[in-house]
Amino acid sequence: MFFHVQRMLNEITPDEPDPAAANALQEVLGGQFGEMRTMFQYLFQSFNFRGPTAKPFRDLLYGVGTEEIGHVELIASTIAQLVDGSPRYQGKKTDPIDQPGAGGATPLDLALDHSNIHHYLVGAQGALPVDAQGDPWTGKYVYDSGNLPLNLLYNLMLESTGRLQKCRLYEMTDNKTARSTLSYLIVRDQAHENAYAKALEALGVKWNKLLPIPKTNAERFPEVAKLVEQGLQSKQYTFSLDQLNEAGKVFQGASPSNDGTTLSTEQAPEGVPFPGIAVERPEEFGPGLDPELLALVQATAEMEIAEAGQPIWGPANGNGSGDGKGVLGKIKDAITP
Amino acid sequence: MFFHVQRMLNEITPDEPDPAAANALQEVLGGQFGEMRTMFQYLFQSFNFRGPTAKPFRDLLYGVGTEEIGHVELIASTIAQLVDGSPRYQGKKTDPIDQPGAGGATPLDLALDHSNIHHYLVGAQGALPVDAQGDPWTGKYVYDSGNLPLNLLYNLMLESTGRLQKCRLYEMTDNKTARSTLSYLIVRDQAHENAYAKALEALGVKWNKLLPIPKTNAERFPEVAKLVEQGLQSKQYTFSLDQLNEAGKVFQGASPSNDGTTLSTEQAPEGVPFPGIAVERPEEFGPGLDPELLALVQATAEMEIAEAGQPIWGPANGNGSGDGKGVLGKIKDAITP
Amino acid sequence: MFFHVQRMLNEITPDEPDPAAANALQEVLGGQFGEMRTMFQYLFQSFNFRGPTAKPFRDLLYGVGTEEIGHVELIASTIAQLVDGSPRYQGKKTDPIDQPGAGGATPLDLALDHSNIHHYLVGAQGALPVDAQGDPWTGKYVYDSGNLPLNLLYNLMLESTGRLQKCRLYEMTDNKTARSTLSYLIVRDQAHENAYAKALEALGVKWNKLLPIPKTNAERFPEVAKLVEQGLQSKQYTFSLDQLNEAGKVFQGASPSNDGTTLSTEQAPEGVPFPGIAVERPEEFGPGLDPELLALVQATAEMEIAEAGQPIWGPANGNGSGDGKGVLGKIKDAITP
Amino acid sequence: MFFHVQRMLNEITPDEPDPAAANALQEVLGGQFGEMRTMFQYLFQSFNFRGPTAKPFRDLLYGVGTEEIGHVELIASTIAQLVDGSPRYQGKKTDPIDQPGAGGATPLDLALDHSNIHHYLVGAQGALPVDAQGDPWTGKYVYDSGNLPLNLLYNLMLESTGRLQKCRLYEMTDNKTARSTLSYLIVRDQAHENAYAKALEALGVKWNKLLPIPKTNAERFPEVAKLVEQGLQSKQYTFSLDQLNEAGKVFQGASPSNDGTTLSTEQAPEGVPFPGIAVERPEEFGPGLDPELLALVQATAEMEIAEAGQPIWGPANGNGSGDGKGVLGKIKDAITP
Amino acid sequence: MFFHVQRMLNEITPDEPDPAAANALQEVLGGQFGEMRTMFQYLFQSFNFRGPTAKPFRDLLYGVGTEEIGHVELIASTIAQLVDGSPRYQGKKTDPIDQPGAGGATPLDLALDHSNIHHYLVGAQGALPVDAQGDPWTGKYVYDSGNLPLNLLYNLMLESTGRLQKCRLYEMTDNKTARSTLSYLIVRDQAHENAYAKALEALGVKWNKLLPIPKTNAERFPEVAKLVEQGLQSKQYTFSLDQLNEAGKVFQGASPSNDGTTLSTEQAPEGVPFPGIAVERPEEFGPGLDPELLALVQATAEMEIAEAGQPIWGPANGNGSGDGKGVLGKIKDAITP
Amino acid sequence: MFFHVQRMLNEITPDEPDPAAANALQEVLGGQFGEMRTMFQYLFQSFNFRGPTAKPFRDLLYGVGTEEIGHVELIASTIAQLVDGSPRYQGKKTDPIDQPGAGGATPLDLALDHSNIHHYLVGAQGALPVDAQGDPWTGKYVYDSGNLPLNLLYNLMLESTGRLQKCRLYEMTDNKTARSTLSYLIVRDQAHENAYAKALEALGVKWNKLLPIPKTNAERFPEVAKLVEQGLQSKQYTFSLDQLNEAGKVFQGASPSNDGTTLSTEQAPEGVPFPGIAVERPEEFGPGLDPELLALVQATAEMEIAEAGQPIWGPANGNGSGDGKGVLGKIKDAITP
Repeated sequence: MFFHVQRMLNEITPDEPDPAAANALQEVLGGQFGEMRTMFQYLFQSFNFRGPTAKPFRDLLYGVGTEEIGHVELIASTIAQLVDGSPRYQGKKTDPIDQPGAGGATPLDLALDHSNIHHYLVGAQGALPVDAQGDPWTGKYVYDSGNLPLNLLYNLMLESTGRLQKCRLYEMTDNKTARSTLSYLIVRDQAHENAYAKALEALGVKWNKLLPIPKTNAERFPEVAKLVEQGLQSKQYTFSLDQLNEAGKVFQGASPSNDGTTLSTEQAPEGVPFPGIAVERPEEFGPGLDPELLALVQATAEMEIAEAGQPIWGPANGNGSGDGKGVLGKIKDAITP
Repeated sequence: MFFHVQRMLNEITPDEPDPAAANALQEVLGGQFGEMRTMFQYLFQSFNFRGPTAKPFRDLLYGVGTEEIGHVELIASTIAQLVDGSPRYQGKKTDPIDQPGAGGATPLDLALDHSNIHHYLVGAQGALPVDAQGDPWTGKYVYDSGNLPLNLLYNLMLESTGRLQKCRLYEMTDNKTARSTLSYLIVRDQAHENAYAKALEALGVKWNKLLPIPKTNAERFPEVAKLVEQGLQSKQYTFSLDQLNEAGKVFQGASPSNDGTTLSTEQAPEGVPFPGIAVERPEEFGPGLDPELLALVQATAEMEIAEAGQPIWGPANGNGSGDGKGVLGKIKDAITP
Repeated sequence: MFFHVQRMLNEITPDEPDPAAANALQEVLGGQFGEMRTMFQYLFQSFNFRGPTAKPFRDLLYGVGTEEIGHVELIASTIAQLVDGSPRYQGKKTDPIDQPGAGGATPLDLALDHSNIHHYLVGAQGALPVDAQGDPWTGKYVYDSGNLPLNLLYNLMLESTGRLQKCRLYEMTDNKTARSTLSYLIVRDQAHENAYAKALEALGVKWNKLLPIPKTNAERFPEVAKLVEQGLQSKQYTFSLDQLNEAGKVFQGASPSNDGTTLSTEQAPEGVPFPGIAVERPEEFGPGLDPELLALVQATAEMEIAEAGQPIWGPANGNGSGDGKGVLGKIKDAITP
Repeated sequence: MFFHVQRMLNEITPDEPDPAAANALQEVLGGQFGEMRTMFQYLFQSFNFRGPTAKPFRDLLYGVGTEEIGHVELIASTIAQLVDGSPRYQGKKTDPIDQPGAGGATPLDLALDHSNIHHYLVGAQGALPVDAQGDPWTGKYVYDSGNLPLNLLYNLMLESTGRLQKCRLYEMTDNKTARSTLSYLIVRDQAHENAYAKALEALGVKWNKLLPIPKTNAERFPEVAKLVEQGLQSKQYTFSLDQLNEAGKVFQGASPSNDGTTLSTEQAPEGVPFPGIAVERPEEFGPGLDPELLALVQATAEMEIAEAGQPIWGPANGNGSGDGKGVLGKIKDAITP
Repeated sequence: MFFHVQRMLNEITPDEPDPAAANALQEVLGGQFGEMRTMFQYLFQSFNFRGPTAKPFRDLLYGVGTEEIGHVELIASTIAQLVDGSPRYQGKKTDPIDQPGAGGATPLDLALDHSNIHHYLVGAQGALPVDAQGDPWTGKYVYDSGNLPLNLLYNLMLESTGRLQKCRLYEMTDNKTARSTLSYLIVRDQAHENAYAKALEALGVKWNKLLPIPKTNAERFPEVAKLVEQGLQSKQYTFSLDQLNEAGKVFQGASPSNDGTTLSTEQAPEGVPFPGIAVERPEEFGPGLDPELLALVQATAEMEIAEAGQPIWGPANGNGSGDGKGVLGKIKDAITP
Repeated sequence: MFFHVQRMLNEITPDEPDPAAANALQEVLGGQFGEMRTMFQYLFQSFNFRGPTAKPFRDLLYGVGTEEIGHVELIASTIAQLVDGSPRYQGKKTDPIDQPGAGGATPLDLALDHSNIHHYLVGAQGALPVDAQGDPWTGKYVYDSGNLPLNLLYNLMLESTGRLQKCRLYEMTDNKTARSTLSYLIVRDQAHENAYAKALEALGVKWNKLLPIPKTNAERFPEVAKLVEQGLQSKQYTFSLDQLNEAGKVFQGASPSNDGTTLSTEQAPEGVPFPGIAVERPEEFGPGLDPELLALVQATAEMEIAEAGQPIWGPANGNGSGDGKGVLGKIKDAITP
């Protein structure tokens, strides 16, 4: 069972719209080595896990898999922000954007020559579940052999390849919006490299000088260096609401990256407040509400919610259970000794 | 940002292994109208949402999308349970399963003639991100036009089609494991039908006698009838940890299904404890630990976790923040007026 | 511009339902060498045709392409008829089909072990745009190099391969429904082989003993022999409503199949009346109308059509034009010298 | 059974070649919501239709499906016209186009940097069965659940999405060739929206202010406004040659688009004469006839056609039947009471 | 530049036809972890290799890649042998196979219910470039990150996964034809595991007890045990005709599999003579030569080859060079110091 | 069994890097009518060949198939050379390439707007198994009907289409690197056209004026003219190390291209020495060795190879056999009468 909070894992730095950078970042979202893949690979390995005595390894997979859902949210939101408003990309203003088609205006002509036309034609300047070539994500990417050593080897290679691609992407664009998310993910990918490398160390492997892959020098990437100083590459989060996740038994001790740090586990990062909801784009007919429909929507938005459930830390009052404890209160009871 | 608890949304009733039923259920997991698709369709529509005044509609999408991640977990776990141990399917015992290949034994010969050979050959008797024909899930399934009325129409049709397929699957197998999960999802799909139909009612549409689709009589499906009596088809969950989700403004009032119920919103269902971790399958070399590797794994499992983060309801002590509040405590501060 | 008449190109002989034969026939519909492919290959070659002096070759492509749409209709209808009612396949009656799910009934359990489960799960016992392996038809199949000799060579090979596969299918099943359509298509494919071989003869090639491919002896296939006696393998239809199609300039003279026949062109075969509309399948929720919706549908069916256009041979009275000639009358005027 | 006339549904306005616009229009041809998909979706729903009492709904699907074949022809021809001669795009003349490769000439260098290289490399400046990203059309797009209300809901959403994409395309290019076809299809898509919306009204739904989707103001699109004035958005064609199509029983009464018009049915539009056959492109080796082969082709073109079938309105004289009535005359006899 | 000899790497033991085993073996040929993939993965990594000082690593890839072409030949030939004649599978003789279609005979009816119908319908009882689910091999499988440590990690995982799947296949069938090839490949995959593991040892990694993966006990697989006794798991072949391949610098020293063996390099195994060419299958129209065509073919087969090149060890006499040395003689001259 | 020599079939002329030309050439490598396809099509037709009396036809397929592996090597190496160093394409020098990411440098920004971003992001400036649209090669391309006349017809069409595309590519770029390989392949494709046309002549067909397709005049392509003068279009190579290949019985006599030449067979062309190994690209982290890892690699490169197999022409000393003859010596013994 999964929960959500309206907070983003890392701040998305504002900058100009940049459809080319947005398209490149699609690889990180829907590519063969992107976050949709890591997410489902670890979750399927968790669902199908074998070996009751190896629970800490299963929980490690569950924790990283849950973090990856948040990565999908972060990168999709970054792409959406980069494409949003891109008809005004590089100060272009030839057409009256508010009047699509009027008098021969072509506010979306940028779509013909830049990146992925589907960003403007199929979606309305938002993220797509595809890679930087426009190829859709496929379940064929997901690897779960059912053999623990093989899964760990694959996962180590997968995180390293993801990190390699993000380093290359960093060198393709200096858009601040793109780089803020790329830098965060470069560091988190290294944390996940460490996680799987450490799990293989528990099975006897010694990595010596091989890690991290790629061999990067964080000083070359200033935004990355800042996060490395905070030690984000050596922390693992469980993203678990209960006390049952045992990933910390694997993710501990000296870092396999040979950077002198010690691995440690926490529940979750603080994150930052959600960005505001994107504005209407009339040239896209999105969301496509005319004044009459808009009035109906606003009437809904101004309602009071009498029926909504209580938050988990407020006074528990009967949502879903009838005993004044709330759902998660009952979970707590169930698992507390 | 997403969180996880080690609880399952609904109980998976035990029964005999049944690889044919498992394969059929793959459609519900990785098919064109399965749960991986609903999950990503609603999440992408959330990430890319336009219209600041339409937040309750966005939050409805976020809530259903988050529930669908739990559906993916539920259905994948159901499939894994149905395939697990299926070399002994229907009491078959011709080969010594514990000694694959020994003396000409063929413990996996069942894989040649039943359902999807990949369940035994690529995976180790677990779930796959594919449909009942073995075709992998693809990002092409995800629909997000950026136009709110179209998205709602599609989502209504999608939930109805998903429910139609689950009703057909119910008629294909009487395996109790399969039917327990199918019945739960038939009812939840109706709740989601109601959600999108209600959102379209807010835009002026009157459904009259059209819903629900398909026109089923719950009495025909005893397990479904039981859940309908509990009113599960008329409840929406936010699966949100904060007070920010406003889906309840949309999901309220009389049910569009014309069954006399009133729609209401809660935080989350209680769920049930996680099933145990699946045992080793030597014929699959899964997880593939020989005695030496097993000893190393057990040493890890017996460690103490000193570094693990505190649960959210325990005494908050500085995980990730340094002020004794814990991460979610800070979230609470941030959003409480 | 295309037109339709509610007549079938050949009679579909009734026989028992047979989902295995139906699935095999999917290759002929949606396979790499099936009718959806021939149809679109010839139509795209027509749309993109180059060479004003080569119009008879273009018109040949248009005519065969238009016939193939009718082949798609014929084969899809054949498949639908073969799957329809197949829960009673081979006299099976264990479950009360009219009461899906009631009391544990599993009227669709046949779907788990036979052929393509999507025939029952995604469709409601009907044809699908896929091949016999369940793979969807793809635009990648369509070949149009823009080079006339290459297109003709490919088309000759394509028709011969299609005919080869139909001969193999004939040997896979003796279901009369399947064989009636297969036999008709074996003969028409030979007519199309002749068409492209003749077009290449016009470019100088001599085939000597190579054709037809495969080398079949119609006597081995009794239903085929009957149609060959009628000379159907040596006739080409234009399926054209106007006098503009010049395919007959290519399709004439001695048959390249060396069977002593002479090629000739006609407008269209007579065909047979449409089969009735298939009945409801409650186990599929198809068409899924409950009594209330059914009543609404019937009210529509009993209406008078005051507005409908006039048929082309009736007294023309102003539909769409206002001059009493009817649409096709005007077309005639436009093109008659 | 299907027929063809060498007339185009709407005039394709001449303008400069424009490969970028051509590529964008591929979405309308071979995209997920393009005309190849609508065509096959409605035809498969027709072939597999269930419910003898719902014939008018079946016939509505057949009529729209047949119209869509003509749309495929129209849009493919438009794309072919837009790519044809595009080496001279924007007046470019650097290379001697008539002498490919001579002296280092690169008449096709445009293909390297613009749109879809396959337009020049795989095809010879013609249309392809792919979308604007170059992805091939796939049978997976076709939706036929076998459940009538679901099919109608999907079809309504499909037409609205197709129309949404065409409106966006209109804003991407002001090429007159592209806009003439886009405008025609925007209006016809609305007619089809009306068709499915009306069919759902027959099942009890009230749309109120929701339609049309997207909410466009035809005045913004001058070419569209002109066609709307002619009422093309409120007319349905049967494209049927016999009296059997009953679509008019559904498509009648007030338009669901709330524009004050009344829906009506006709047999077919008049259309316009076919454009001429495209000229040779030596840089593409298309059609690739050297003087010797050309002479052979011309000899064929100059033949008399003695064997061709008679047109349907001429003196019927025995084509295929022997009784002086002609094929369609016999069809008439067969179906006239 | 590549060469071929008409010898097979290992003997294919004769046994009954077995289409189910044949289909399972398709995974090893055209599956995600099959031999077509290993072959192209290593060859592409060779073609794109970076790092002039790392030539021995490049040559290792070239050598294994070249061996894999022979594996593709071996496994395809094994599958072809297993499907060939399978209408007589399990002694079945109901239909007169020599007279397809005659008198209602259905010699290919087996194809409807067993494994992959394409083995009989698309091919003529031969191997296909697809996996055991019938999915075609795709270039997306090929991994070449351009980063040497990542490529080596992936290759190690890939060989181990391939070997895992072959061990599972061994347990699915006891057909001797299938097992002879599977056993050979299980041992060669271990040799390749050793190759990549050793290359990573050269980069500092210590594997301790992790390898081989999967942890198999060769005694369980008698045919494997026999080959292991010959030390085939510890030998690497260069399959190189010149002295330039330096793979032996990497593949030497103690085996990473901890089995006490020492790694060594040779040019190539001896192999066994080619099996005879498969006989005609009239039910498949393969090769489809009637008496007249057969006579033409035989006339060709009886010709003398006056023009054929000389073998490399015979008296060199000017083929392609004019100096009496032969092509490879010149190669020798070019590279001999 | 296959062998390799470190020689290239034709020289790759040096020129500037040119990523657009590289991308266009991908069609020839991984496209539907590219060399990966011809290679596997002929090899599968060889593996599955039926008809013991038709061995010369089988051997022809084996020989061409083996040559195509070398074509894959040639074209992949050409692409790798064209992309390598392309950040400096057209003299561009804005960013310090040796310091990726440092100080905001974006050495890979070219990747955002040119051709296939995967050349820089997934690979490290190397060839990919995809076509010019970035679509991966697929096993669906491979055609083997099992019917000899059909296979020959398809192969003739395939070679002609491949040659057509290469002629078009020649007109797209004047980069010398690209044109050197294209010209060589245009001539070799004609040789293969001749091979299959001749095989069909053996079955009775007369081609008259149809061949070659496309009708090109070699004088338009100077590099091609040079190779045609050497008669490369009329030579077939066996690429066979033994005396068993009988392709020469088919490939002899007057050329079907009507150019007055006589067909002849040889063992192999001489080829040219391998190009050097590509240098490190730090902006790609390829091969990604830091000084410590580099030192380890160099230690390996400096080793002596004591264990390596002997070359085939050196003193045979027991590799793999123990009798002092060497592997190929034994092959020779085995097949010499």
